Amino acid sequence: MKRRDFIRTTAAGSVAAGAATFSAPAIAQDKKTLKMVTPWPKNFPGLGTSAQRLAKRITQASDGRLDVKVFAAGELVPALESFDAVSGGTADLYHAAEYYWQGKSNGFAFFTTVPYGFTPQEMHAWIHYGGGQELWDELSAQYNIKPILCGNTGAQMAGWFRQPIESLEDLKGLKFRTPGLGGEVMRQVGANVVTLPGGEIFTSLQSGAIDAAEWVGPWNDLAFGFHQITKHYYYPGYQEPNAALSCGINRKVWNDLSDADHAVIQAACLAEADYTLAEFDANNGDALDTLINEHGVQLHRFSDDILKSLGEASRDVVADTAQESALTKRIYESYTAFREKMIRWTDIANREYLNARALTLSDG
Amino acid sequence: MKRRDFIRTTAAGSVAAGAATFSAPAIAQDKKTLKMVTPWPKNFPGLGTSAQRLAKRITQASDGRLDVKVFAAGELVPALESFDAVSGGTADLYHAAEYYWQGKSNGFAFFTTVPYGFTPQEMHAWIHYGGGQELWDELSAQYNIKPILCGNTGAQMAGWFRQPIESLEDLKGLKFRTPGLGGEVMRQVGANVVTLPGGEIFTSLQSGAIDAAEWVGPWNDLAFGFHQITKHYYYPGYQEPNAALSCGINRKVWNDLSDADHAVIQAACLAEADYTLAEFDANNGDALDTLINEHGVQLHRFSDDILKSLGEASRDVVADTAQESALTKRIYESYTAFREKMIRWTDIANREYLNARALTLSDG
Repeated sequence: MKRRDFIRTTAAGSVAAGAATFSAPAIAQDKKTLKMVTPWPKNFPGLGTSAQRLAKRITQASDGRLDVKVFAAGELVPALESFDAVSGGTADLYHAAEYYWQGKSNGFAFFTTVPYGFTPQEMHAWIHYGGGQELWDELSAQYNIKPILCGNTGAQMAGWFRQPIESLEDLKGLKFRTPGLGGEVMRQVGANVVTLPGGEIFTSLQSGAIDAAEWVGPWNDLAFGFHQITKHYYYPGYQEPNAALSCGINRKVWNDLSDADHAVIQAACLAEADYTLAEFDANNGDALDTLINEHGVQLHRFSDDILKSLGEASRDVVADTAQESALTKRIYESYTAFREKMIRWTDIANREYLNARALTLSDG
Repeated sequence: MKRRDFIRTTAAGSVAAGAATFSAPAIAQDKKTLKMVTPWPKNFPGLGTSAQRLAKRITQASDGRLDVKVFAAGELVPALESFDAVSGGTADLYHAAEYYWQGKSNGFAFFTTVPYGFTPQEMHAWIHYGGGQELWDELSAQYNIKPILCGNTGAQMAGWFRQPIESLEDLKGLKFRTPGLGGEVMRQVGANVVTLPGGEIFTSLQSGAIDAAEWVGPWNDLAFGFHQITKHYYYPGYQEPNAALSCGINRKVWNDLSDADHAVIQAACLAEADYTLAEFDANNGDALDTLINEHGVQLHRFSDDILKSLGEASRDVVADTAQESALTKRIYESYTAFREKMIRWTDIANREYLNARALTLSDG
């Protein structure tokens, strides 16, 4: 029995009739506890806290009928098994980033970010109005999951380098910790790409075991203390110009929820999409200030030559990635066609505005 | 009686007791109809439709206990009396843009946009994490209103000009329809700024009664057909680099709502903040394409000289605006300090990324 129907029945004045159809099992079905798994350490700033906030929004807005419990990495399942846990029904939903599931399908990368891909605004426009959601639904349905956009970390930095990088030559053979498709791009231009978990970056960079490392952006990088090792901090983060976060819900759980529950979850996810990006931007702004003014970090821009080469390599790497399957190819084609279309508007509305503002207001 | 309590009582198995405490007036209180007024024409693309969608999100997510009815401009009160209607209790909430209330206080402009102000991302970061919400609450509380961010149209264009504008001289004496603070800026650089309602722009531009007009952006401008009169379409829209939309709720109505209702309304508003911007971006991208490829519109960028002069005039106009009161001054100071801090991060994360992408992918 749906709660709405219950209220309708009783509100009609027929209390006795309402009570008669109102059994304890119906109520038990009405109030649900949902297990949310995440790949984030508990209360990890920005990511773990956004998962907590999403759970709280859903619980509060549903007036407690959906009680969402968050499990940090390892609490219910290991970090990267969040997807399988939700797919198989061990957990009800996850808060994560889709590119973690590239082992399942390369198509998932497009729902987080790809090198030289969308800005955050373009990403959300593609998902909501450019056919992105429909393709995402189709891909995730193969794994019994309903996906919803629920955050964005904004752009990343290109990384920390022990020595300045002045030309493409300087990248050749460089031992560089940079994961995912960005790593593939760097490999194409000759870097010696190294795989390392986050927790080992600091000591490896310090010892010289690696020459360079890319982690996230100013907020998370400041916390790791890379500025204590080198002052050379590079931009732009061509490899992750946005990074969407996602909520994935077991399809059976989703289908069993009411329209009101769907509306609550959709609204809570999109609210976080707006809120998380604001949190990352504000904190990145603060952290960048601290890195420069308190720790003497030097910001460097890659040269045009390097940026062009990375652009060409990115085009090839992303296109190769898409050859995996017919669906991944359709996702890739939708993504690149939408980017093609949006570039002109983004350039005017955003790039040219910022270039104009820089003439009078910027540091740049 | 709160609905949560009702469920708890009945769920305990004591159905008869639950029914006994369950009176018709309690249900009537629990289910509320909320009147939402707007300054938008009915179903006006982007703005009117976002108000409708917001109402639907709230009604659905609250499982119908908040039934939001939308009134277009003139249906309950005239467009610009939405604020007074909510302040005085004739309506419960509005969906609007705060700069319409500048007649009450100049401070409201900062919660929509100001010339050379925030990008959409910066705006949302200021509201959620830069002290913006607290100042907005303080300002609106003086009028018995609780304000929430609930949309953004993104950047606008600088306008349509009958003749190309190549230097500052070309702006002097130009009969230009451009409202608000952008109008003040244009007046400072010598334009003859004209006030005209939207519906009169087309014929005035056609007859030569005015030389130039700024309306919104490609999506809304295409619908008005300005491209039939002139092909000279200028960017960047320095006067409105973002335009936040707002939901304002009567304070007594807000205070009487439950925590669950608050969570529903907050989530629905922020969901729209994300969704509306995506809608405007996607539609602006499409419309720009149509204007250029089907109607032969020529995009022009203002010269550096013009942009610098507009930047200086904007700084003066916005600073003057803030002298009105101690609170408006505090809002201005918070806004400009946050912009100062964020510029460096926006330049790296956004401007420099887009400049890099333009090297390999852009039209620009």
